[in-house]
Amino acid sequence: MTQKKIEKVAIIGGTHGNEFIGSYLSQYWIKNPETVQRESFDTKIIFANQKAFKEVRRYIDRDLNRTCTIADLYNEELMGHEDNLAKELNQIIGPKDRDDINSDFVIDLHTTTANMGLSLVISQANELTWKAASYLSQKFSDLNIYRWKGDEEDAFVDSLGSAGFAIEVGAVPQGVLRADLFFKTKALVESLLDFFELYNQNNIEIEKSVIIYEHVKLVDFPRDDEGNITAMVHPERQDMDFNEIKIGDPLFITFDGRIVKYDGPEEMYGIFINEAAYYEKGFALCLAKKELFSF
Amino acid sequence: MTQKKIEKVAIIGGTHGNEFIGSYLSQYWIKNPETVQRESFDTKIIFANQKAFKEVRRYIDRDLNRTCTIADLYNEELMGHEDNLAKELNQIIGPKDRDDINSDFVIDLHTTTANMGLSLVISQANELTWKAASYLSQKFSDLNIYRWKGDEEDAFVDSLGSAGFAIEVGAVPQGVLRADLFFKTKALVESLLDFFELYNQNNIEIEKSVIIYEHVKLVDFPRDDEGNITAMVHPERQDMDFNEIKIGDPLFITFDGRIVKYDGPEEMYGIFINEAAYYEKGFALCLAKKELFSF
Repeated sequence: MTQKKIEKVAIIGGTHGNEFIGSYLSQYWIKNPETVQRESFDTKIIFANQKAFKEVRRYIDRDLNRTCTIADLYNEELMGHEDNLAKELNQIIGPKDRDDINSDFVIDLHTTTANMGLSLVISQANELTWKAASYLSQKFSDLNIYRWKGDEEDAFVDSLGSAGFAIEVGAVPQGVLRADLFFKTKALVESLLDFFELYNQNNIEIEKSVIIYEHVKLVDFPRDDEGNITAMVHPERQDMDFNEIKIGDPLFITFDGRIVKYDGPEEMYGIFINEAAYYEKGFALCLAKKELFSF
Repeated sequence: MTQKKIEKVAIIGGTHGNEFIGSYLSQYWIKNPETVQRESFDTKIIFANQKAFKEVRRYIDRDLNRTCTIADLYNEELMGHEDNLAKELNQIIGPKDRDDINSDFVIDLHTTTANMGLSLVISQANELTWKAASYLSQKFSDLNIYRWKGDEEDAFVDSLGSAGFAIEVGAVPQGVLRADLFFKTKALVESLLDFFELYNQNNIEIEKSVIIYEHVKLVDFPRDDEGNITAMVHPERQDMDFNEIKIGDPLFITFDGRIVKYDGPEEMYGIFINEAAYYEKGFALCLAKKELFSF
């Protein structure tokens, strides 16, 4: 079977200005392009939200990674900093969902305060995306794949390309560089570029199934009538991303030490546990099922 | 020897709005004052920078914990959010350096992204401060005491009282509650209040010496001519606060993997290693000497 070649790849760092690994890695690659150049395709590096990076904030007006729906991209009344950025990105690496799209694959770099290790967040149901994920999961034994169906669908920066995903690494605080995770992210992306090269040479066999964590639902913190948090993530859940939560396991602990248990109805896996940016979005963790996904 | 009794204690949380443990703990104590009430003195709880807390930022205009010098407190031209807050605090728990001062002891609650565990940061050379530190170090075997002589002296919130210190706990990301460190902070403060009670009863023998880490100097990240960071904290230093750094040990690693070593002139201990808020202040870690301090 002949397959369409990959011609244009985009790597986005600094989608969130306070996530330093992608912010610094994209700047590094812009200054040192040889490590991301491959023979058979073009790689574009974008350091996205530079204003938010300077202010060490996730965003100035609005979360850029929730701004890339078709409706918002073509809404001329939206004129905030990230609205404009999303439209610019759509010019450079999109236009989204169009035949003349400028990127065959978008890699969007993130960090999380959750202990996610090295992980992919996939929201596109695209064969090339799954092949890339499968290749990486064979190369990196500690890589986890999370299929996201969370707060808003199809609003991510990686949705601007015809395939792609977000890379999430953690635990790392906002506004901090951790060298170990910086180099892991760098190795993962450079391996992905190697995959594209092999793919274009038609020189690779991919396992057509992969273990994933399939999103089921979001769980908010316990809150009072005014919306204030009344409990914290329980120490037995903290840093235990991609681990199983059984019915009856402690989920939260109130400020005076009362335990709130997980009440089912079935065993799940915890993901994005205690991510700083999700306090305002209204969830403390995601629950997912672990399964073998075939594509 | 008769000693002056402790009559007024102030506990400040949320001095930095994105340090959640103090922010939530002060709110908890305001709603549940019985846990901080003791017979022989009055305890005032203050949730300080509520505006910065709502915005999940360290500060709005200026770092409140660098705003409490006498010069700034009485400078009427300073009218930023934290300038006004510092002046209000000085009314409530000061006035600083005056005989009619409203607090005999100020406890200022902080968190850090550095792996500082449970620690005290002492900038006041006051006998009661040292007695309190000595008491706590006997009660909490994992407590470390750092004597700070850092970027600006006598500008801290705890300097508004006639004695006091800051409590720093970590590692915890900005904008995140960690239950384990929340309860450790709570236990430490409540034990300190017990000490004041025993002190007032003249019912306690204090060891008049304590192991401390005495500040020597700040070390900045390697930077280029434009001030951009060119290297990260080396993985062998990351999370190794209060551990020894020998001459020749790796200190930083550049984005392309070159190691920058510690070149002396003598062995030191690393503190506040890779604290997010200090990127803008221009240091990557503090170096200190470990010594037995007698008072």
